Order: sequence, then C-alpha cells, then structure tokens
Amino acid sequence: MKKKNKKVSASILIIGNEILSGRTQDLNVSFISNWLNLKCGIAVHEVRIIPDIEKTIIKNVLEMSKKFDYVFTTGGIGPTHDDITAKSISKAFKVKYEYHNEAYSILEKYYGKIKFSDGRKKMAKMPKGSLLILNPSSAAPGFKIKNIFSLPGVPSILSSMIENCKKYIIKGSITLNKTINLHTVESRIAKDLGGIQKKYIKKVDIGSYPFFRLGSVGVSIVLRSISKNYINQCYQDIKKLIINKKLKVYKN
Amino acid sequence: MKKKNKKVSASILIIGNEILSGRTQDLNVSFISNWLNLKCGIAVHEVRIIPDIEKTIIKNVLEMSKKFDYVFTTGGIGPTHDDITAKSISKAFKVKYEYHNEAYSILEKYYGKIKFSDGRKKMAKMPKGSLLILNPSSAAPGFKIKNIFSLPGVPSILSSMIENCKKYIIKGSITLNKTINLHTVESRIAKDLGGIQKKYIKKVDIGSYPFFRLGSVGVSIVLRSISKNYINQCYQDIKKLIINKKLKVYKN
Repeated sequence: MKKKNKKVSASILIIGNEILSGRTQDLNVSFISNWLNLKCGIAVHEVRIIPDIEKTIIKNVLEMSKKFDYVFTTGGIGPTHDDITAKSISKAFKVKYEYHNEAYSILEKYYGKIKFSDGRKKMAKMPKGSLLILNPSSAAPGFKIKNIFSLPGVPSILSSMIENCKKYIIKGSITLNKTINLHTVESRIAKDLGGIQKKYIKKVDIGSYPFFRLGSVGVSIVLRSISKNYINQCYQDIKKLIINKKLKVYKN
Repeated sequence: MKKKNKKVSASILIIGNEILSGRTQDLNVSFISNWLNLKCGIAVHEVRIIPDIEKTIIKNVLEMSKKFDYVFTTGGIGPTHDDITAKSISKAFKVKYEYHNEAYSILEKYYGKIKFSDGRKKMAKMPKGSLLILNPSSAAPGFKIKNIFSLPGVPSILSSMIENCKKYIIKGSITLNKTINLHTVESRIAKDLGGIQKKYIKKVDIGSYPFFRLGSVGVSIVLRSISKNYINQCYQDIKKLIINKKLKVYKN
C-alpha cells in the first residue's frame, strides 16, 4: 500500500453474458465492494455489467478508466473463445496483446510442459506492460494495466486473489458505519430521518432500508461516515427519535 | 402484450448506495433478466448500479433510455429522504413531479385517511404522465414513463409486481437454451469449442463456464439461440466433441 489519499474512487466492470442473462447470480460486486471499503477505504461509485462483446468492453473500460481512480473487471480471462477481456483491454489502450513472460512460466510450471496446451497458453497473454495479480488457487494470474485490475469471474478464485491487488493501491480513508434495526416501517420515521440527514449533510450518509425477516417487518438505519465523531453525534439524534416515537430496537 | 418484434433490448438500472457499498447482495438483476428472457423474449444488454445521487440518476436514465428499448430501474421509490428515483426521473424528462391521482387513492385506501402521513403520500408522487405498475404486496405502485419501468428495490415486492409490467411491453423472440455439464476443465475443450462457435457464429451463442461442486470441477456449456434447429445442430457437434475427447457428462 502506498500513502493515504482521502477520497479514492473505484468502479467495477462485470464482463459476462452469463450474469447479464440471469443464468448466474453475481457475487463479486458485493465481495469486491466490501473489500475495497473495509480494507482500502475506497468507495465503489459505479458498477456495470456488460456482455462478452469486444467493442462494448473497449468502450466501457475507457470510460471507466477515465472517470474513476481504479476499475476492477471480472470475467473473461479464461482459456475459451468467449474469454476476450485481456485482448479487448489491449485494444482499448492500444498496446500489444502478448505473452507475459512470468505468467507463461507460472502456467508452464503449473500444468507441466506436456499438458501446457494452446488454451492454457492463452491465459498467459495480456496487455503489454501488465503487472501480475497472482492466483494462489488455480495459477492463472490476473493483471493490472494502468488503473485497471482484471480478475477472473469465479468468485472463489477471485476472492483468493484480491489481497494481491493491495500493493498496487493507494488507500483512502476508511468509511465507518453503524446500523440500527428498528421494529417499524419506513413511512413512520421518514420525515424525522430526513430532518436528521439534513443536519448531517455531507458529514454522515444516512441510509434507510426496509427488511422482512422472521415474519416481522423492520427498517435498518445505516449511518456511514469517515468520522467516528459525526457517527456518534448522529446516533444520539437517532436515539432521541427512537424515544420520541416509542420505537422498539430489533435485537439480532 | 403487443405484437412481436424479433429483437427487443432492455437494460437494468439498480439505484441504491446499499448495493454499491456491498452491504446488500443484489438479487434483482438475475430475477428481472430471467423474467425478460423467458417471458418476454427480451435480452438485457447492460446493467448499471449507481448511487442515490440525483444528477447521476438523471444522466444514466437519459443515456439508457436512448440506447435501449426498455429500461428497468429498481430502488429509491419508498418514503424516505434517500428515495429520490421518481423525482430524478421527472427532472430527467423535464416533466412535473406530482401526485398521481390513482396512486394517491390506492395508498389512501390502503393506509386509511388517518394514517396516510406525508411520508406515505410521497409514494404517490411520480413523473406527470406516468402509468401505474400495481403492487399486490404492499400497495405502493411502481410507474412507467416513456420506456422506463420504475420498480422498488425489495426483491419480494419487485417480484410480485413484475407481471404487471407485461401489458406495456412488446415481446421479442424467446431465446432458447441448452446446457451440457461436463467433467472436464475449460482448457481441454477450448480450441474445439472455439471452432464450433465459429461454425455457428451469429446463429448460436456458445458460453463456457467452469463450475466447482461436490468437490469436483466441471464446465457448463450453454447454447443459446432463438432457433431450436440451430441449437440441435450445434448440440450434435458438441456430442461429437464429447465422444472424440472421451469426456464424461455430468449428471445432475
């Protein structure tokens, strides 16, 4: 990790027809976003899910690369014909799509010379100038080029690699959060909560999320801020609201 | 449902800090996408997840409205201060944000005159000219304006409302699919599969997805096409590949 920088932004680009078609439930957005929040103090500002189409990948990579400090892509770096992420990113940045020597060695060693087929060799091809993101579970590395981090789509493999992104990342200030679960409905507290949000505008971000569990309804109020002080102050106002409205706090 | 139109496109815009921050796992993308595919013959071409920020909602609604036949938004239509979807869409299309008479009546009837608070009344406000998407589970309707369908974020409520979107939608041709699960790894079949994809280019879309379950690894090959004939032809080629490579088919 390098030096701290208060506000660092990131975005996630999920590449894959299987997510878009609804066949596969994405799990990587929440995983990456939580990791960036909690471990790096970086907020994800936008997510896009796009198909395995070269020109679409190029367009989105360039747009997001310009707009955010970091872009995390998932999917499309395997051996099959529909894995076109590395080639597309090479085209986006107008650099060669070629074997990365270290990646080639890692994969050759992993599979053995005889079983190192063309499909497997393809996983060593990436944009010229890429840095490797090592993969402790299935060898094939991801890569970093400019501000883009390319990771695989399989959640268990992605999660085993994420810590290896850290060394390339400048951290931001960690966002703290506090959740209060209430036995109530949103419309009962909406007005007061809006008032509290106005008081803490740009200091604490207050989210209100209805939930349904164990046959009862409730509302989760989530306070988010980089300042513990402001969260505590805001929490005192929420406590007053709870007392005034005679609300019951939901115990997990 | 209106008349058929071969290629109809859709996109999904998930609005909500709770999804972006990773706090909440999105379930609506796969639900809406599957429903559009299977019930309406409409493919989702892009998904975006964005925060509860007015100018961001406006920008994305306008971009997606222009680019796709239909846009489905989820989230931000409840009673609290962070529910700003309806107001933002009004601004995007430069129409008034006002009470919808029928929505007002539905909510007044549901809550009763005395309990019909300002927060609850807010859920009857929407862009002028909106058509209602009725909500059988918790009364507060979604709305359709131009080619935008605005639905709530809570998955159980959204799924109870989705059939009520149908009457506003022109169907496309249903995409059929066939899945073959193999006891193999992608790199073993990558080259041959690429050859088969080339043969059926623009006729069948072949996806290859590694999976890990019950302690064994495998690959799901998914054939997708609007033509049953092409899927069957392509499947014969996959069968030849299975025989030639002596692969085992995974039985569920």
